[in-house]
Amino acid sequence: MVKSGRSREVEVVSKVSVAPTSAAVTAGEFNFQEYMMGRADDVNTALDQCLPMAYPESVHESMRYSLLAGGKRIRPMLCVAAFELFATRMDTVMPTACALEMIHTMTLMHDDLPCMDNDDFRRGVPTNHKVYGEEVAILAGDALLTYAFEYIAEKTPTEGDGCADPRTVLKVLSYIGRKVGSTGLVGGQIVDIEMEGRSEEASLETLQYIHAKKTADLLDAAVVCGAMLGGAREEDVARLTKYSQNIGLAFQVVDDILDCTMSSEELGKTAGKDEAVGKTTYPSLLGLDESRRIAQKLIDDAKAELSSYDQAKAAPLLALADYIGNRQN
Amino acid sequence: MVKSGRSREVEVVSKVSVAPTSAAVTAGEFNFQEYMMGRADDVNTALDQCLPMAYPESVHESMRYSLLAGGKRIRPMLCVAAFELFATRMDTVMPTACALEMIHTMTLMHDDLPCMDNDDFRRGVPTNHKVYGEEVAILAGDALLTYAFEYIAEKTPTEGDGCADPRTVLKVLSYIGRKVGSTGLVGGQIVDIEMEGRSEEASLETLQYIHAKKTADLLDAAVVCGAMLGGAREEDVARLTKYSQNIGLAFQVVDDILDCTMSSEELGKTAGKDEAVGKTTYPSLLGLDESRRIAQKLIDDAKAELSSYDQAKAAPLLALADYIGNRQN
Repeated sequence: MVKSGRSREVEVVSKVSVAPTSAAVTAGEFNFQEYMMGRADDVNTALDQCLPMAYPESVHESMRYSLLAGGKRIRPMLCVAAFELFATRMDTVMPTACALEMIHTMTLMHDDLPCMDNDDFRRGVPTNHKVYGEEVAILAGDALLTYAFEYIAEKTPTEGDGCADPRTVLKVLSYIGRKVGSTGLVGGQIVDIEMEGRSEEASLETLQYIHAKKTADLLDAAVVCGAMLGGAREEDVARLTKYSQNIGLAFQVVDDILDCTMSSEELGKTAGKDEAVGKTTYPSLLGLDESRRIAQKLIDDAKAELSSYDQAKAAPLLALADYIGNRQN
Repeated sequence: MVKSGRSREVEVVSKVSVAPTSAAVTAGEFNFQEYMMGRADDVNTALDQCLPMAYPESVHESMRYSLLAGGKRIRPMLCVAAFELFATRMDTVMPTACALEMIHTMTLMHDDLPCMDNDDFRRGVPTNHKVYGEEVAILAGDALLTYAFEYIAEKTPTEGDGCADPRTVLKVLSYIGRKVGSTGLVGGQIVDIEMEGRSEEASLETLQYIHAKKTADLLDAAVVCGAMLGGAREEDVARLTKYSQNIGLAFQVVDDILDCTMSSEELGKTAGKDEAVGKTTYPSLLGLDESRRIAQKLIDDAKAELSSYDQAKAAPLLALADYIGNRQN
């Protein structure tokens, strides 16, 4: 059995300090730490429960090993926070929040494979194929990807108060598919692999494509699908799309900065890999200071998109933007 | 650009001779060859159109290479035939029919990888990783799997006469997910890999599990989802489930027989592999004659499930059962 990663999660989350953006949420200030810990707990419990052990054991163990190995749960958090800007019934959004983490996990499992990034450590533990073998890691990834779509289709309530319209659920599935597939996340990973060791040929445009696809697209899916499930109008979705694109790009810029400034121990995965394999990054193209300035600008732009909302309800999304800009792993 | 495989498809199909089961469909006899050629053409055209070339080229080329490399299109055919037992508006079923072929194709791409079955040829041409490399084959498989779910969610019409109810589309997505994931197709592949080279330990029960999951489950999804999209009632779905389970098992028994009786050239893939890797098969457990008897019994049982339907409308499903029992590759 794999630990749910609750204690590590809490530790990560409690490091984040964010000024409350609204004076009153319930009776007092918005407490980001408390909110994040509560939501991280909800998400980790939901993830643990959504994937019980079953026959054949090896594939389920492998799936649970990576899905429950901790991680920052940023995608489910964003999905829930965007939903809460418009609605309250949590079981409407939770299947999609969990599904996004399944997809994120499977992309890591496949990206870590010897024929791709060939990584030995992830989230502070040996990568999936190091523990279960390549064949199981590939198939468990396939199963997680499949289960993500199945779980949304099967578990999102479509009858009763506060439920999603079944057409909205179809839209969510379609949106996630587009952001994950050959012109989304997978497309980004392909170009990333193709550019490896050819750093000098990579333009800022190519770099931005890779980042937009590999990272920003799934963060965007989290925010937009959370909002859609909450019943957001088109203009809300447009605003949240801008928010998510900015934090998505910031996320990757920060990732690049951390890769060349932190140790493997601090990161929980192999550090300094980008330079070792000659990968083009923001710091390698623009330097560290300029990269940091860009990250901060993106976070500020993201938060500006939320200025017209009730700042109490927007507080989690505002805090998550800061968290993404300031994270240390 | 990859050929759509139309000529090969027609050749395969025209070999099948099936006695018509009803005197009149339109003005005369049910012409299986004509029906199959027409439907194969529809499916191949739809597959070609559903996945246009796009950036990044490598992943789209890889996806199209395997998706359009011919193949018997049995899953889309079954899906359409089951739909036609209840309804007529073809664009309601075609996205699901195509999606099933995408999923089937991606499982072949991943199963052929060096760390799995390590196959060099498939459908008469080099396997995907032999042409595009392992990393592209894995990612293109991920993209096809993703696109399958996206395509159903995005393209199935849910408004207007003869369209599917959006809740039915969600059921279809959920059903396919269950049949493909860790307790379905992927589960079967895992157990199959785990049993390789341990032939003497494999019981008939294990063999049946592998076959049920690796092959029967997706054929079942094709039939059941086609019927659901056509508006089938619960008792119809129950009957079609029995039909599909029987043809699914028959399909794999015939596959085992062909592997040890045909040449690689005749099969379009490496023959004699099962024995070479010590894989447990029906012939290795029960002998060739008994395996052939079992296959015929399963086909007869499948057809018996359709006896209560208008035999004109059931003709394609009856003929497909015979085709599966008698196929030569």
